[in-house]
Amino acid sequence: MSKYLLEDIPADELAQRSAVAVRLADSVRELIESTVVTEVGDESVADAIRHIEKAREILAAERLPGAFGIRFNSDGTKRNWGNAVVGLRNPVAPPIEIGYEDGLTWGEAELGPAYEGPAGLVHGGIIAAILDQVLGSAAENAGAPGMTGTLTMRYRRGTRLGPIRAEARLDRVEGPKSFVTGTLSTDEGVCVEAEGIFILPKWARGDVADKLRKAVGEA
Amino acid sequence: MSKYLLEDIPADELAQRSAVAVRLADSVRELIESTVVTEVGDESVADAIRHIEKAREILAAERLPGAFGIRFNSDGTKRNWGNAVVGLRNPVAPPIEIGYEDGLTWGEAELGPAYEGPAGLVHGGIIAAILDQVLGSAAENAGAPGMTGTLTMRYRRGTRLGPIRAEARLDRVEGPKSFVTGTLSTDEGVCVEAEGIFILPKWARGDVADKLRKAVGEA
Repeated sequence: MSKYLLEDIPADELAQRSAVAVRLADSVRELIESTVVTEVGDESVADAIRHIEKAREILAAERLPGAFGIRFNSDGTKRNWGNAVVGLRNPVAPPIEIGYEDGLTWGEAELGPAYEGPAGLVHGGIIAAILDQVLGSAAENAGAPGMTGTLTMRYRRGTRLGPIRAEARLDRVEGPKSFVTGTLSTDEGVCVEAEGIFILPKWARGDVADKLRKAVGEA
Repeated sequence: MSKYLLEDIPADELAQRSAVAVRLADSVRELIESTVVTEVGDESVADAIRHIEKAREILAAERLPGAFGIRFNSDGTKRNWGNAVVGLRNPVAPPIEIGYEDGLTWGEAELGPAYEGPAGLVHGGIIAAILDQVLGSAAENAGAPGMTGTLTMRYRRGTRLGPIRAEARLDRVEGPKSFVTGTLSTDEGVCVEAEGIFILPKWARGDVADKLRKAVGEA
């Protein structure tokens, strides 16, 4: 089962595939929210389930042998559409929209009822997932990528369901370790502070591009 | 908008509602996985979307005004069916099955393609979410509940998609702070170690039951 793939998809086809993926995943995201908050009776639920199973049957007719994996396109872009936090084709992901400018990596999302932990508040673990992703992206954007080694969160206050924004910056690099700090905020201010150490895997040290090609070839 | 609710649902009705909720959420979970890994063409996707939108429309006919919240039943049980990690009516949740015996709290789940981060591996943030929940449950099960104050994860190795098991124990209590440690493992061994400090909110200190009734009355 391939985990990393090299692809060669033209830009217009990629844009088209992306639009289809977003339409599908967004429709499932809306379904998820309705599932969490519905108050309809058992007969309606049974009726809804029939449609859900029909949709699943249609989609399952052809499927990847494993998970989506991570795909590198010939234009240098990376596709991680299956990612549980930012994957645009993964309905579990809000998804977080990630941006980068002047050394600052940010992530924004609107978190609805499907991300609840304490009553009315975002689940602390979902916050950790978002910070893991945004801090990891900050390391990558600063040219010092790695896998999560250590991640520490300090929860300053409850995070209300609704719009959130995470921010992260690379603090320093020591050998294969990238030290990143960040926060997650709502319009009430900073709710959570985070620190992460991201470690470049041994196989990726040295000439990263060569190693990656080798890894892809071996996958 | 109510966040905490007191309910009085008879045991047999609760069991019936639970069965319906699980059937619905499980059907959406299967749909999510198919969405992540489908390879069908655009026409089939459009066809699936029509069914998904129909299901959403049926479920959205009557809905809660906000998120699911947390409900306390007259038999002493707690319903957090909307919880993003353990909520049995929340398709974002795997859900983690939680158990407790002899001071050990465990959580088990089968994590499929919808929980991917690095290729073929569980997203580090999803692992953090699971550990947050299981460590928090360990504090609660040991009679020293709290909101997450600090959470630290050390990632020892990649966690393959598939069955996982988390374990946690209360280490000690200092005033309102509960110190909990835990791990997340696969059949390859321990993948992640975690420490958490869970803090009893100020409003809940003293006579918790009285405070809770007060909070519920005010919600």
